[in-house]
Order: sequence, then structure tokens, then C-alpha cells
Amino acid sequence: MKTRIFVTLKGGVLDPQGKAIHHALEGLGFDGVNDVRAGKLIELDLDDGVSDEQIDEMCRKLLANTVIENYRIERVQG
Amino acid sequence: MKTRIFVTLKGGVLDPQGKAIHHALEGLGFDGVNDVRAGKLIELDLDDGVSDEQIDEMCRKLLANTVIENYRIERVQG
Repeated sequence: MKTRIFVTLKGGVLDPQGKAIHHALEGLGFDGVNDVRAGKLIELDLDDGVSDEQIDEMCRKLLANTVIENYRIERVQG
Repeated sequence: MKTRIFVTLKGGVLDPQGKAIHHALEGLGFDGVNDVRAGKLIELDLDDGVSDEQIDEMCRKLLANTVIENYRIERVQG
């Protein structure tokens, strides 16, 4: 069973990586870019028996720093 | 207009970050984790006038290393 975890910075948290990407895009001549936020996408291949609670615990204990990051769990069908 | 870019390593490309996460999850006692792949999620806030071609070009020129990475563009409605 495939599961995707999206980890993004909470609003208001400074995002130096996003700022650097934004600056680089403008340097390459791309207009119309108002803001860039960089985050993580973690794809887990799990046994079917792994529960939602266990996945949530993986996020809270390791995959996301819940002080400054939000996470979203998405089960991939099929 | 909000757009998400998902950047993931191509199959067969070694993923040391994924391996490290996998190893750490097992060290924390989580069973049933078969594989972990780490990627990037980049959220762009763009003017409505920015075209699909321009976004694709941003990906090819900066956001993804197309030699070892795939990218997927997702326009976020609303």
C-alpha cells in the first residue's frame, strides 16, 4: 500500500528555500511569480496492515517537525 | 493562482534520503515499512496569466533536475 505524506511549512514561518527559488526564477526571467513555498513529499510503501494511527505517529515522531510544519497524509488507491 | 509541483526521483535512482528515513522509522520501532522515497513539493503562487508552458519551462530549467527527477504539475482550483 502506497501512502504519500506532504510536509509544508506553517504559515508565517520564514522559508529561505522558497525565497531562493523565487529569486532564481526571477533571475531566469520568469514574471508573474508572487510567492514560492518549498516542502517535502515522502512516499511510503507500507504493508496493508499499517494503520492510519501508525502513519500519523510516524509523521509526528519523524517525518514532520510539528512545531513549524504541517503534514497531510494521502493514501494512494491501487 | 496556486500551483503545486511534485518532484520525485526517477525509478532506479539511489535515494539516500529515503534510505535514511526508512532506517530511522525502523529504529523507532515502526514495522511494515517496505520502502521510502523522498521528494520535493513546491507551491507556487502565480499570476493568472502564467501559462502551462511557462510553468513547464520553470520545472525544466530550475525546479527539477530532469536527468534524475520526474516532475508533475498540479493546478490548485479556487
